[in-house]
Amino acid sequence: MAKERLIYLPLGGAGEVGMNCYVYGYGPEGRERLIVVDLGVTFPDMDTTPGVGLILPDIEWLVERRDRIEAIFFTHAHEDHIGALGHLWESLRAPVHARAFTAGIGRIKLEECGIGPETVTTVSAWPETVRAGPFDVGMLPVSHSIPESSALVIDTPAGRILHTGDFKLDATPVVGDPFDRSLWKEVAASGVRALVCDSTNVLSPNPGRSEASIVREVEDLMSVSKGMVAATTFASNIARLKTLAEAGHKAGRSVVLLGRAMRRMVGAAKAAGVLERFPGVVAPEVAEDIPREHLLLLVTGSQGERRAASAKLSQGRYLGFELKEGDTFLFSSKTIPGNERDVIRIMNRFSERGVEVIGDATDNYHVSGHANRPDLEEMHALVDPEMVIPMHGEHRMLSSHARLAERGGRSAVVATNGAVVDISGSSPEVIERIEVGRTYLDGSVLVDSQAFIVRDRIRMALNGHVYVDVRIGNDGEKVGAWSETRGLAGTGRSGEPLDKVLDRALTRVLVREKQRVLADDEAVDTLVRSAARKTAMAEIGKKPEVTVAIDRDG
Amino acid sequence: MAKERLIYLPLGGAGEVGMNCYVYGYGPEGRERLIVVDLGVTFPDMDTTPGVGLILPDIEWLVERRDRIEAIFFTHAHEDHIGALGHLWESLRAPVHARAFTAGIGRIKLEECGIGPETVTTVSAWPETVRAGPFDVGMLPVSHSIPESSALVIDTPAGRILHTGDFKLDATPVVGDPFDRSLWKEVAASGVRALVCDSTNVLSPNPGRSEASIVREVEDLMSVSKGMVAATTFASNIARLKTLAEAGHKAGRSVVLLGRAMRRMVGAAKAAGVLERFPGVVAPEVAEDIPREHLLLLVTGSQGERRAASAKLSQGRYLGFELKEGDTFLFSSKTIPGNERDVIRIMNRFSERGVEVIGDATDNYHVSGHANRPDLEEMHALVDPEMVIPMHGEHRMLSSHARLAERGGRSAVVATNGAVVDISGSSPEVIERIEVGRTYLDGSVLVDSQAFIVRDRIRMALNGHVYVDVRIGNDGEKVGAWSETRGLAGTGRSGEPLDKVLDRALTRVLVREKQRVLADDEAVDTLVRSAARKTAMAEIGKKPEVTVAIDRDG
Repeated sequence: MAKERLIYLPLGGAGEVGMNCYVYGYGPEGRERLIVVDLGVTFPDMDTTPGVGLILPDIEWLVERRDRIEAIFFTHAHEDHIGALGHLWESLRAPVHARAFTAGIGRIKLEECGIGPETVTTVSAWPETVRAGPFDVGMLPVSHSIPESSALVIDTPAGRILHTGDFKLDATPVVGDPFDRSLWKEVAASGVRALVCDSTNVLSPNPGRSEASIVREVEDLMSVSKGMVAATTFASNIARLKTLAEAGHKAGRSVVLLGRAMRRMVGAAKAAGVLERFPGVVAPEVAEDIPREHLLLLVTGSQGERRAASAKLSQGRYLGFELKEGDTFLFSSKTIPGNERDVIRIMNRFSERGVEVIGDATDNYHVSGHANRPDLEEMHALVDPEMVIPMHGEHRMLSSHARLAERGGRSAVVATNGAVVDISGSSPEVIERIEVGRTYLDGSVLVDSQAFIVRDRIRMALNGHVYVDVRIGNDGEKVGAWSETRGLAGTGRSGEPLDKVLDRALTRVLVREKQRVLADDEAVDTLVRSAARKTAMAEIGKKPEVTVAIDRDG
Repeated sequence: MAKERLIYLPLGGAGEVGMNCYVYGYGPEGRERLIVVDLGVTFPDMDTTPGVGLILPDIEWLVERRDRIEAIFFTHAHEDHIGALGHLWESLRAPVHARAFTAGIGRIKLEECGIGPETVTTVSAWPETVRAGPFDVGMLPVSHSIPESSALVIDTPAGRILHTGDFKLDATPVVGDPFDRSLWKEVAASGVRALVCDSTNVLSPNPGRSEASIVREVEDLMSVSKGMVAATTFASNIARLKTLAEAGHKAGRSVVLLGRAMRRMVGAAKAAGVLERFPGVVAPEVAEDIPREHLLLLVTGSQGERRAASAKLSQGRYLGFELKEGDTFLFSSKTIPGNERDVIRIMNRFSERGVEVIGDATDNYHVSGHANRPDLEEMHALVDPEMVIPMHGEHRMLSSHARLAERGGRSAVVATNGAVVDISGSSPEVIERIEVGRTYLDGSVLVDSQAFIVRDRIRMALNGHVYVDVRIGNDGEKVGAWSETRGLAGTGRSGEPLDKVLDRALTRVLVREKQRVLADDEAVDTLVRSAARKTAMAEIGKKPEVTVAIDRDG
């Protein structure tokens, strides 16, 4: 009988922040039974993925082994952990398990893709467990920046795994239970084979601060501000919304929720019973009759998203509200790297309206949801696992986290997306590397990140596009080229229209060419593209993308 | 006789960080004699200016008044102050004045555009002055992050202006003279009408740190590191290069300069006599024989630029050097907002090679070149001007700076690019707003930022491009459409090739259309574009850019 083994395989989130997707397997080699932890997304950017809607994990490996997937578990409801559920579930069709708040969000995501709510089973917190093939999985509460975040206790025939999910050590998390050291100690007491652990903040040298630590500052801001206050944070950060709303309420302000995600998340939190008191919320229509100094708007768009409420407000009146001189706009959030320009744009628009903008440069109004370096050390010590597998982080974070664990006397491995790690032995061992790409949701189509589609769009953005219609008569006479340019200067060095210069140059090249070459589509394509790029380079200093169509008529 | 007036007009740098260009004028309204201060550039990004080479100020207003321009002055040699000189001088053709180091860089920029070195006159520091029409202009030394930075003392019949340029208050700047409070006090003693003042760091609440404050930390790093050390900073930060090189030298390391800008800047600094000792520099070929632990590479690319030495090194062997486990890469620099992704990409590439990366999160190895909020307050008090005009900064910075000045009892104005400010009276007054855009260097062509070229490129990047060749026979028969797509999914909902689906749908639309419509090119264009977008939306969920060419044959 083949030896059974326990494997760990990240398909997303390892070597990046975002798009979390991890696989565990147990069984004989090549016949392991599998569970999936999280199906997250990451967000496109203009530099590398212009026009893409969402970036999803490449789950081809899983799809090929669909019959071996026992279940899918979600640690929490952040987009980078659950955002791909609706788009990918149909390809996996395995039962889904999550705690109430997360399950609620998951059902909304499935419903948007036409999949019924019965797909998701709500699970209670540890000590309840779910049997999934050779695995017993429990949801161990942990503090983070969204309700009901859970680490997973994964019991296998080869021992216990603790998969932290995203977490911080927060004794006063405002919403939900404090981080419970004694419970964690108890869970770890029987021995933990592997601690698979969040690495996002490993480069932050100081201990993390509690969600409650900003309450006083927020209260001061709400009472000192003379006009309307608008504040933005991630809508899923229910604790932050509560802090903001309670501080506003204390300062005599009614609270208005602006933005779809804001209303949806508060609704989901109430439905799951994680948010009981949320003071003084009024509808936008009601707010019209309230003096501005008695208003607090909680708005979406902390990352400068162009269609979110914060962006709309920065441009003028939105749903009856208009910020002006004397009002305050608070970013109670950290700007994710890459979003700086968008956030700064909105800050300056508010500044132009005379609004006081309080940015993320100060830590007074925001705390992170992830464990910092000293907190990670504490976690390692608390769980005292045989090995540490850093997950969720860029390479430099995973690497720093692994060194931290090794300095603590524990074995560790830097395993990035696609690394199949055998964790059956005394130390983790990368036994295989599978090729994993990404999947783009582009319009309504899922496309492979390796396809040329997005590469071509980037090239057109950088270099412009020339379309050349080549006509070749059957007799080899009447050869000619007609060009249309897009995204290129109309005239260059010669002062003549670029398309005319191209037409003449390309026709000249074709006319001089041998019959044998003209008869060969591929040769004509290469010839015309090269000549078009050379001509454009001489004329305007750019080498455009060129698409050639060849017409052969009688 | 018309009343004479003194005006200030920012054409770049006011409402943004970068692309500095300011105009002062004195004389009767509409006949003011003009001087220009700085001709800087700003850098394109994929979000708003894909494929653009450089962004230059829109100087149309100046070109129309070319006969009234007395001179152009440069405060210092940073790209965002002098980078546009070569590209724009031909349109202005006014004499250029700068101190030796800046003049040297200016001459290189002109030479690259085929303009002779005699265009630039080297000026000594204050008390030397240059007569320029009604203006007397002196170069008052100030500390910054590049040699020989100068504020301008601009004497006019309406009083003295102090234009700070970029500055900090540094008593120990490593290269160049310490900030000379008594000299500034002396210059200001006779009264200053307007302090036109750098706003870049007004949002930083703590006093700025001296360049010398990082020496100890850098020395420790160089001696503790066991392998090769590579460090990057702006090549123009000669003081930082000196700090790094001296620390390396002290730790027994030979210094290698990698990257064209690095060699050019060190050469210019030596030529201008601002850098005397620069220890232990060896050529890359010589370094091959030196053990790696005795090497320090000073490399270009602190902002993650894709073609700079830091990027090359992160990808493997470059000019004989290859960083690996045990080596250290130091970012002795701040990441400019918007460059985070590029910098992080390089950090992770080094991490993958096992290199220890020290980022900009820590302030141990970098100090800013700009005056922080308390330093600005000190400058206001030192100069004690009648009015403060905040310059160089985003709107929120100018606005915060103006409030700071007003709280100090001085009048101030937020004047962004295009605001003509009369500073003849007791307080600054915006008397006109001229329309200013930007100019793009796109390939070898200067194009107006309002042109559709770049907009079209962005649209193709987001939406893809469909080219449709429409053929209409003269008799109205033989109507048809042939599509070519670029940057779009090949197949969508129907499973058929997208171009075939488009061909059929568009031909159907054309065939059904009335002769009158088919005879009208514009109507056909609108019809086809709309139908192509609708078809693509149904098929793949995207509305592409569409270019229509119409062929009418017999």
